[in-house]
Amino acid sequence: MWQQRIRLSSLHNKVMPAEQAVQFIQAGMTIGMSGFTRAGDSKAIPIALAAKAATQGPLNLTLFTGASLGNNSDGLMAESNVLARRSPFQVDATMRRAINQGKVLFYDQHLSELAEHLRAEPGKPIDVAVIEAVAITEDGHIVPSTSVGNSASFVAQAKQVIVELNTAMPAELEGFHDVYLPKKRPGRAPIPLTSVNQRLGTNAIAVDPERIVAIVLTDTLDSPSTATPPDSETQSIAQHIVRFLENEVAEGRLDHSLLPLQVGIGSIANAVTQGLVESDFKDLTMYSEVLQDSAFHLLESGQLRFASASSITVTAPMMQHFFSHLDQYRDRIVLRPQEISNHPEIVRRLGIIAINAALEFDLYGNVNSTHVSGTKMMNGIGGSGDFARNAHLSIFVTKSLAKGGAISRVVPMVSHVDHCEHDVDILVTEQGLADLRGLAPRERAELVIQNCVHPDYQAALQDYFERACQRGGHTPHLLEEALSWHLRFEEHGSMHQQETAKA
Amino acid sequence: MWQQRIRLSSLHNKVMPAEQAVQFIQAGMTIGMSGFTRAGDSKAIPIALAAKAATQGPLNLTLFTGASLGNNSDGLMAESNVLARRSPFQVDATMRRAINQGKVLFYDQHLSELAEHLRAEPGKPIDVAVIEAVAITEDGHIVPSTSVGNSASFVAQAKQVIVELNTAMPAELEGFHDVYLPKKRPGRAPIPLTSVNQRLGTNAIAVDPERIVAIVLTDTLDSPSTATPPDSETQSIAQHIVRFLENEVAEGRLDHSLLPLQVGIGSIANAVTQGLVESDFKDLTMYSEVLQDSAFHLLESGQLRFASASSITVTAPMMQHFFSHLDQYRDRIVLRPQEISNHPEIVRRLGIIAINAALEFDLYGNVNSTHVSGTKMMNGIGGSGDFARNAHLSIFVTKSLAKGGAISRVVPMVSHVDHCEHDVDILVTEQGLADLRGLAPRERAELVIQNCVHPDYQAALQDYFERACQRGGHTPHLLEEALSWHLRFEEHGSMHQQETAKA
Repeated sequence: MWQQRIRLSSLHNKVMPAEQAVQFIQAGMTIGMSGFTRAGDSKAIPIALAAKAATQGPLNLTLFTGASLGNNSDGLMAESNVLARRSPFQVDATMRRAINQGKVLFYDQHLSELAEHLRAEPGKPIDVAVIEAVAITEDGHIVPSTSVGNSASFVAQAKQVIVELNTAMPAELEGFHDVYLPKKRPGRAPIPLTSVNQRLGTNAIAVDPERIVAIVLTDTLDSPSTATPPDSETQSIAQHIVRFLENEVAEGRLDHSLLPLQVGIGSIANAVTQGLVESDFKDLTMYSEVLQDSAFHLLESGQLRFASASSITVTAPMMQHFFSHLDQYRDRIVLRPQEISNHPEIVRRLGIIAINAALEFDLYGNVNSTHVSGTKMMNGIGGSGDFARNAHLSIFVTKSLAKGGAISRVVPMVSHVDHCEHDVDILVTEQGLADLRGLAPRERAELVIQNCVHPDYQAALQDYFERACQRGGHTPHLLEEALSWHLRFEEHGSMHQQETAKA
Repeated sequence: MWQQRIRLSSLHNKVMPAEQAVQFIQAGMTIGMSGFTRAGDSKAIPIALAAKAATQGPLNLTLFTGASLGNNSDGLMAESNVLARRSPFQVDATMRRAINQGKVLFYDQHLSELAEHLRAEPGKPIDVAVIEAVAITEDGHIVPSTSVGNSASFVAQAKQVIVELNTAMPAELEGFHDVYLPKKRPGRAPIPLTSVNQRLGTNAIAVDPERIVAIVLTDTLDSPSTATPPDSETQSIAQHIVRFLENEVAEGRLDHSLLPLQVGIGSIANAVTQGLVESDFKDLTMYSEVLQDSAFHLLESGQLRFASASSITVTAPMMQHFFSHLDQYRDRIVLRPQEISNHPEIVRRLGIIAINAALEFDLYGNVNSTHVSGTKMMNGIGGSGDFARNAHLSIFVTKSLAKGGAISRVVPMVSHVDHCEHDVDILVTEQGLADLRGLAPRERAELVIQNCVHPDYQAALQDYFERACQRGGHTPHLLEEALSWHLRFEEHGSMHQQETAKA
């Protein structure tokens, strides 16, 4: 079977077990692995690397990926002395612990930028690229699986390439990808994309077959999506957004097909997309980095005409459905390199409506997407900044409370800023929506207090704001109290002032 | 004389005094005025508006401009009950006070984005555009003066247009401008610019002459640049940058013509450009928002081949020199709308080297460009975010101390974030340069402490960092102390710990 998938027969003799393929990966090397939001990641090499480190000692690799890996790979590599450095994104609890202990040095980066940074560093190439594929063409080119991510950039710059040929995925995924990369500067041309369904490049990742040093056969599927189904709060968030967009149409600022949608990964984002299924919007398009179950529901309902992304991250049943109906989706989905799916040039040109999750936001519209209490990394900024800065509408969503009410996600001052006040148009919680466009900070604060914060914290936030305004300033703050809510939680387990008094 | 400059003679009867022209501006209106970094601003209408408000009561105008105005216009309008709202940038002490008191509501915005936001708001047009010109063409089109800024966008959307024809400036400025605006979305094409000297549009701002309701004659020059000459500290900053860029060339990451330079406005930025005059770089280009004296020195020395910007803001002697040698510069300078000079699409495509001033930066590379002590607005974010996010190299510069040493511009945590850690590559003070590319936060902190902070604050910053690391986290902080340096300054007039002890 696998022989048919390696259509350049001279590569057949490169097939070998993962344990043998990792001979090409030496301590201290820089490795570029496929994988974006747990889709299309390398399945076998991380396990073989952990085994190699167990017998031969720490590998201290620098590992670049598209975004997060699945199959517990990040966790395994973090606890097995495989990695010294990691970039640009991860979602694994064990990896997160290693990062927060300073054991793995993490470079948290806008997802559109890693490829650009690598291209600008001729002196620091990728030593080995490890790329999951569903086929290798007659020319030896690599057909990716469920994501493109940074794979084409890694291959372009890698001295050696290891292909993981995944026979558990249909070879008929060939044709869903559009591989196009911008050229080195100076002298770069515009990226010619002007509509979401436009194809710019090739079906496979070009590579001189001589650089393919090993092919490892695998048959493990991607880790399924962990997004939970919508609940009453995420449904409220979705309803606020749908109502807001309906009003934009009524005011003549958008038409019924809106503008291309980008929706971040996770349960809230999934619920928001799901909310569109019950809306009257038609002929929608998506220009996003990841397609979740809800995107397929919208495609099924007919409301979504076309979806462009860099990966498909869905539940196991939805992946089965997709694999069984590939021809039905062939003309309605394209997977692109993350540099293109997230490129500021395209985001601004198309006028994306960007919907991303916030960890917390503050009175004035600053958003923290990454750091718990300003110090502990969660996952990374991901693509949110690529989209939010240049979007037609930059929307951030969160539930107003966390930890059973001990945490307010709406605070006086965020403890870390990933999206500054200049990049945030709309804030939404289950309580309501604040449209900050064109408003001065004091006006934004009033809307955030009125519409977004949970009633349990409303009086305290109002009190902070009023006392801050008495001191004056364009963006009124009480610096000695600005981070006190976070401190109270750290010290007393709750941001509530009453409970602090009791403690 | 002025008759020759208004080449569509049917417009001659629109010439009227400013006092009469302001009849078209009514209380509550939205006004778009020319002017970018004090260049090419309206000279007469602000004075007439102040007089109108004095006799007729508060005008409560919403005022949009390119960037800052000169001639004390912002101050006059702020103290004369002319304005309710102001966007996107200002540098006036009186206006600043009104903003910080909440009397004028200020919307601080990326300079590339105002035009985009206006275009997306069909329901909120500009009531009156007030545009400085050096001529009006046979077709009634407007030839701007020393800046383009947002003038073309304002004219495109204005119900009525007032032209200020400035006869103190040479009519031969015609030909220096390239007016091109992106179309409304959806269906927008790529901006076709691929080199700094490329022309995309027209020499003048197209307008139906019927919409020109008044022409006011003026003969006042722009307010001259207030940039101070280089001093030993700003020269050190320049030297650190030149040495860094030389090393980039040596490492093969840049060639001797570098990549197009963007240099922010102000004394440090001016000194940095001046530093390039003494370098070995050749065939340089500039793709910036403003040209200061130093840009002309580089053009004179022959090292700068071509400069693209949105305005010319120079000292009085340099403006005189420029006006006297226009033909010498005609093929080496182009002035563009700020939406194009600052456009993320172009910044990323060309691979700009962006050098901008910071108000303060922190251990981990976050930059505050706007807020004193996190509350009081200085000027606004300006174009720094347009460039820093998408640049090939994003460099921020500041002197390490302010107020005679009472303020360290390198702090544990900035009190306001305009440029997050993800957008900052290089930090420079007179002490040295920190190259943060690819580094985890803990590594960045070590470089910032070693290379950037003033020796007077080095031990305290090191102490903070070490104690924070003991608590752990990807980005170690002591939340209860993170803003304590700012608080100490507010309370005791100095960030120094010793002086606090004395107090």
